[in-house]
Amino acid sequence: MDNSSPLSSLRRLMAVNDIDAYVVRISDPYLSEYIPRHWAALEWLSGFTGSAGTLIVTAEGGMLYTDSRYWEQAEEELQGSGLELVRQGKPGEPDIASWLATHVPSDPTVAASPDFFSVSEWERWDEMLAHVDMHLDPIEDLIDDIWTEGRPARPSSAVRELTGAGLSVSEKLTELRRRLREKNADATLLCALDDIAWLTNSRGNDIDFNPVFLATMAVTQDRAVLFTERSRFTDKHLARLEAQGVVVSNEAPFPAAGNIFGNSTVLVDPARVSVGLMSYIECDTILDLSPVTVMKSRKTADELDSIRDAMRRDGTALCEFYAALDASLARGEPWDELKTSRALREAREAQGAFDLSFETIAAFGKHGALPHYSPNETSNATFTEGLLLIDSGGQYPTGTTDITRMTAVGKLTDEMRRDVTLVLKAMIALARGVFPEGSSGSQLDAVTRAPLWQEGLDFGHGTGHGVGFVLNVHEGPFRVSPYATDSGELGLHPGLVFSDEPGLYRPGCWGVRIENLVAAKPVEETLFGRFISLEMLTLCPIDRRTFDIALLTDAEIRWIDDYHAKVRDELENRLTPLARDWLLRVTEPLRA
Amino acid sequence: MDNSSPLSSLRRLMAVNDIDAYVVRISDPYLSEYIPRHWAALEWLSGFTGSAGTLIVTAEGGMLYTDSRYWEQAEEELQGSGLELVRQGKPGEPDIASWLATHVPSDPTVAASPDFFSVSEWERWDEMLAHVDMHLDPIEDLIDDIWTEGRPARPSSAVRELTGAGLSVSEKLTELRRRLREKNADATLLCALDDIAWLTNSRGNDIDFNPVFLATMAVTQDRAVLFTERSRFTDKHLARLEAQGVVVSNEAPFPAAGNIFGNSTVLVDPARVSVGLMSYIECDTILDLSPVTVMKSRKTADELDSIRDAMRRDGTALCEFYAALDASLARGEPWDELKTSRALREAREAQGAFDLSFETIAAFGKHGALPHYSPNETSNATFTEGLLLIDSGGQYPTGTTDITRMTAVGKLTDEMRRDVTLVLKAMIALARGVFPEGSSGSQLDAVTRAPLWQEGLDFGHGTGHGVGFVLNVHEGPFRVSPYATDSGELGLHPGLVFSDEPGLYRPGCWGVRIENLVAAKPVEETLFGRFISLEMLTLCPIDRRTFDIALLTDAEIRWIDDYHAKVRDELENRLTPLARDWLLRVTEPLRA
Repeated sequence: MDNSSPLSSLRRLMAVNDIDAYVVRISDPYLSEYIPRHWAALEWLSGFTGSAGTLIVTAEGGMLYTDSRYWEQAEEELQGSGLELVRQGKPGEPDIASWLATHVPSDPTVAASPDFFSVSEWERWDEMLAHVDMHLDPIEDLIDDIWTEGRPARPSSAVRELTGAGLSVSEKLTELRRRLREKNADATLLCALDDIAWLTNSRGNDIDFNPVFLATMAVTQDRAVLFTERSRFTDKHLARLEAQGVVVSNEAPFPAAGNIFGNSTVLVDPARVSVGLMSYIECDTILDLSPVTVMKSRKTADELDSIRDAMRRDGTALCEFYAALDASLARGEPWDELKTSRALREAREAQGAFDLSFETIAAFGKHGALPHYSPNETSNATFTEGLLLIDSGGQYPTGTTDITRMTAVGKLTDEMRRDVTLVLKAMIALARGVFPEGSSGSQLDAVTRAPLWQEGLDFGHGTGHGVGFVLNVHEGPFRVSPYATDSGELGLHPGLVFSDEPGLYRPGCWGVRIENLVAAKPVEETLFGRFISLEMLTLCPIDRRTFDIALLTDAEIRWIDDYHAKVRDELENRLTPLARDWLLRVTEPLRA
Repeated sequence: MDNSSPLSSLRRLMAVNDIDAYVVRISDPYLSEYIPRHWAALEWLSGFTGSAGTLIVTAEGGMLYTDSRYWEQAEEELQGSGLELVRQGKPGEPDIASWLATHVPSDPTVAASPDFFSVSEWERWDEMLAHVDMHLDPIEDLIDDIWTEGRPARPSSAVRELTGAGLSVSEKLTELRRRLREKNADATLLCALDDIAWLTNSRGNDIDFNPVFLATMAVTQDRAVLFTERSRFTDKHLARLEAQGVVVSNEAPFPAAGNIFGNSTVLVDPARVSVGLMSYIECDTILDLSPVTVMKSRKTADELDSIRDAMRRDGTALCEFYAALDASLARGEPWDELKTSRALREAREAQGAFDLSFETIAAFGKHGALPHYSPNETSNATFTEGLLLIDSGGQYPTGTTDITRMTAVGKLTDEMRRDVTLVLKAMIALARGVFPEGSSGSQLDAVTRAPLWQEGLDFGHGTGHGVGFVLNVHEGPFRVSPYATDSGELGLHPGLVFSDEPGLYRPGCWGVRIENLVAAKPVEETLFGRFISLEMLTLCPIDRRTFDIALLTDAEIRWIDDYHAKVRDELENRLTPLARDWLLRVTEPLRA
């Protein structure tokens, strides 16, 4: 074993600290979904580049625990590391607790840095380890001591003011303070980066795809302090924030925040604050969902207007791209997944996108069956004949987009077209659905899946996720999923923006997913309560070559024709002649 | 105030015991849904005859707390009692805790008999009272001391052996013991009467509509003792029970059960065992759903076959009744709700029903808008022109039925037919649905309601309840409701029998409900998991005069035609000529 390797360094430090097993996660102190390279310790130690996994390092060995998406890749990347691959969810494989029970001495010290676990996650680990009579010891991040050379710096991009945001910062603070009082709290500590970006109407560029900036924030009834480098802001921006009651401070969040809180009762969201940060709070705390999370999820009329602008830009980019792709394929020119990703990014940038909202999934044929696939130089597939799935999105100054469309490359089989039709039926079931206000995501999910279940089909991911406003493409708390049973306040409400993206995956053959973003809007109140319908935000034709009209109901055909008429209305005057001709052709009514 | 009244007697006893408020519920020591008259203390004290309500008696006054179904009736029945009516759910009215806070001295003694609260209910009361700094004191049932004269006796009907039950008693005990061990328990205490009747393959007649007998049961790994009067059983029945490991004991359940348990760990279902009984258990307990409840809910193939026989009988009775009703109405003969109930009961008895499974709801016109209406001499409506809703069921030696149908009396308006059609669409949505095994009742519920939601309509009760096998018409734990979020083990499984009964109520105008009982059955397992479809158990035509074919989809019309063909096949050779002609006419395909 290489004595100078990161793993060896870690083991030496573990020995000094009497640690039998050290847990490394793919996480940062802000509990972000995408993490800055500065905290990519798991990859630095193990070589594993996947986006999900847990590393346990022991005195002699260790293991990586990851789900089926990454088994093949992990096997390759772990070679020579001495680390075992434990396949999460594979029958017969141990879970983390059982693995530990057979790989560390009895009564072991299992340690981890509390900075990378939310309060809820730490609790779940403790419960899990209790089954094998262990617990998780908090310890300072050992990686900080050993990863000195070549470690990417903490990002510190410029922070800009977001114009066109729905509410002013002071309006948001007033509402937040009201909601805190309603929950018998005086103050709150925020470290979820999208919560902070939203509350301060500010955006940064610290994390790929997510226009956020690293910061921590303390809000009391009369103060609001944003802990991050003042140098990242323009003077004008700092002045505007201060005028609205937000002071930006170069201090470390603690002990400064502790002084600000004083004797307050601090609301802490156990899913969004790290155990590390939590441990600094000395006053009374209330553990509850952050009001910011709920407020942020309900878009204002101004935000929705702005998002509609982003959708027109994105729709324009998509039509230009798909028109060009169709024309090029018709000329017999070669295409592959990476070329597709590049062309699509260029089309979006031409419409003003400042970033993508996530890594483009351009998946041809059997790659479509891997819901999280994105092409690289090795996997890159050249198009032959079959289904092309493209799931992509852009960050525009006016909004965040996310769309999936299926495209026919050459001739499709009846089986492919049947699968696409059934997924389309599911997508339409949600799109044209009406639901009582406060419905749970699980209720919406059932209505969406019903046409697939009817044929003994299903898919393994959620039907929809919330989407931020010029912010993260995955945003809570509302989602459409079998497991999203929260109703009422956390259920369906006007202003929520989320995706409608059922799928169907035939491993080794093809995959189908069709996705629009939708906005929840009230319909007239009836004797029977308040109801919500969904406005289609996404503007892009659905490729009629991929589905079978004969399998659609009248209502479904009407929905498609209405949707295509809307797409045509919104986009036809924005397009180049080639794309305009294409749009007019592909949006002709299915039934005249 | 009358010094000899039940309320005065209770208040004297309360004074002796220093009780400021005494709580009386509509409940029995077995926590039954329908209670024997012996425990009808609330009615004896207050005069209120409704089936839901809570009575609080204080030194000077008191109140009855009941929901909107009973407000009018309670107002009348409470006259002269000195008791206040508090309208549960009415904006501005206090809840029980707030009422107490303003009607008893500070630091009061609020007491109740623990025999009439489940462990979970008592906990909820304590939580509720904690908001006003009170708690609930357990005290011996004061009613026992004062209700001596004229009190109905505890029922003690003959107990008979149920033939044709799916599993033998010893098979059931073996499985119960296995499931107890799986939950780390050795033993269990049962007091839910339907659990006991099911486990012992025995039926009684102690409670209206429910063929159960009062008993308590202790089961350990090697013993099973049924505490009830041995005199109710035939010698042969006692011998057969003993041969299968069940001893019937005349002793009181405690201390006898305590001796049987010894040092066992006893599983107690907190929703199905009273606080009173629970307090006698001295060994370790585990609080969990009773395995009997889950086992009982999944009918065996033999039970389902038997139920199909009951359905043919019930279908025959219904066809005879509806054919006669139609013919009689055509001749211009007068009908009313009570006459309907009587005729239907006679038709069922002619087919071998030994009881109804609940009070018949025969509701004409605006009475249909009251989901729990049943006619009495005062309310009895004579039929004019409009919708007739009949929700009824029978207890047959082979099974329990429950059905709701709408009938057109004279000419219906387009609005009525539209409402019936929409409810029919909802009913069919569930009936023809396919769902993953383990789906929650809330998922099924959403699929059912979707066609109503689509039009801004909804209804205030659950979509479906479990139904027992020659047992209670309401049986847990599975139900179809927005609130039924349990999935997996407590979700949809083969063998479950439950109702599919969406509705729509227009207060003061009319009400609609259409109900079939269904059995969950597996469909072929696919690559995507195990799926369940629903077999229609109920056999009775759906009155085509009540709905509008133009509003139905092809799939819905096909479903109705297939269902009617099945009803015709199953019933045509069992009917009198008049009813047979009627059946052949009303089951003709909608679309030839």
